[in-house]
Amino acid sequence: MRVIVPAADGRAVKVRAGQRVRVTDLEGGQVGDLFAFAADDMTEQLSASHTRAATSRLFPAVGEQFVTDRRRPMLTLVGDTSPGWHDMLIAACDPARYRALGVPGFHASCADNLRRSLDSLGLECPRTPQPVNLFMRIPVSGDGRLSWLSAVSRPGDAITFEAAVDCVFVVSACPQDLVEINGHGPTPLAIDLLSGHEHQPRSE
Amino acid sequence: MRVIVPAADGRAVKVRAGQRVRVTDLEGGQVGDLFAFAADDMTEQLSASHTRAATSRLFPAVGEQFVTDRRRPMLTLVGDTSPGWHDMLIAACDPARYRALGVPGFHASCADNLRRSLDSLGLECPRTPQPVNLFMRIPVSGDGRLSWLSAVSRPGDAITFEAAVDCVFVVSACPQDLVEINGHGPTPLAIDLLSGHEHQPRSE
Repeated sequence: MRVIVPAADGRAVKVRAGQRVRVTDLEGGQVGDLFAFAADDMTEQLSASHTRAATSRLFPAVGEQFVTDRRRPMLTLVGDTSPGWHDMLIAACDPARYRALGVPGFHASCADNLRRSLDSLGLECPRTPQPVNLFMRIPVSGDGRLSWLSAVSRPGDAITFEAAVDCVFVVSACPQDLVEINGHGPTPLAIDLLSGHEHQPRSE
Repeated sequence: MRVIVPAADGRAVKVRAGQRVRVTDLEGGQVGDLFAFAADDMTEQLSASHTRAATSRLFPAVGEQFVTDRRRPMLTLVGDTSPGWHDMLIAACDPARYRALGVPGFHASCADNLRRSLDSLGLECPRTPQPVNLFMRIPVSGDGRLSWLSAVSRPGDAITFEAAVDCVFVVSACPQDLVEINGHGPTPLAIDLLSGHEHQPRSE
């Protein structure tokens, strides 16, 4: 099953334990903010800081797991055809971010996309968790400085996860068009829920 | 006013906007988990991921600010006499962490210390925010790997903040004694609420 995430919008899908889910950058250069929640308890969430503690890395390697704020494995990274840039340092964009960047009125944001995507499933979460920013290129220099660079994912590049528990999986095609993280302005992404025969080897 | 944070325990103090507060590593080699909340709304919290977005650094430099999850400045880093190692990547230790490390029964944790410290002021927060881990030494290698090393803060080393808003300031003297982050096992810290004449220059 394929769900298109329109440019600057978000979508939520339910993923069963053992099922694989792939996020594809359809046109290239597009950041996707990923959030994940335990299907039976929205207060249990994929947590960047607990995942860093579990993996001792800024971002998990293929074969490693993203864990929740209760330190339970939630998603295993099983494949990545992109150049490998993803970010797990930066907060989701939100109305306050765009106000600070000088936007006077409404601007779509990953925080709003999360809220509306969950609402479409009759779900909610009171706070915006720190996202996993797929394809986002934030290199860290030796002295701890962060650079904000355009995503270098190519059209069709994809990252694939296997759910360790039943979860709600949300992707926002980041609407950021004031900071140079999205190559050609916001473009769409795709979420594919894979059945068994569509599985790829880990080295995909 | 000095508040001693006993080894493996926590303490919460209220800090007014404009007031300075200092955390001192009394015996050296001790990590302190710092949490901060808006005094008038505990749901507004110091946020590591928003602070990284605001400063474009893994950890603010002296003169820079820690911001909340609503992107409001909350604390300014005004002085640091330690060698400068602090962490803003790793989640607070909690009962699940010690269970995973093989502890069968109770073990003190920064998450529990936060809860009990807030309770002493009649306050609570439902989730444990990602802390600012004072004096914690987690170097990041060029390929994104994290190392967990013993703190190198010396007896009397201190880090000083100025509150940008009225806030609740919580410090836990990290009880971790199974991973080598605290030099000689848990030791106490001190929180000093400074009046004007105790201010130090920024270059302290």
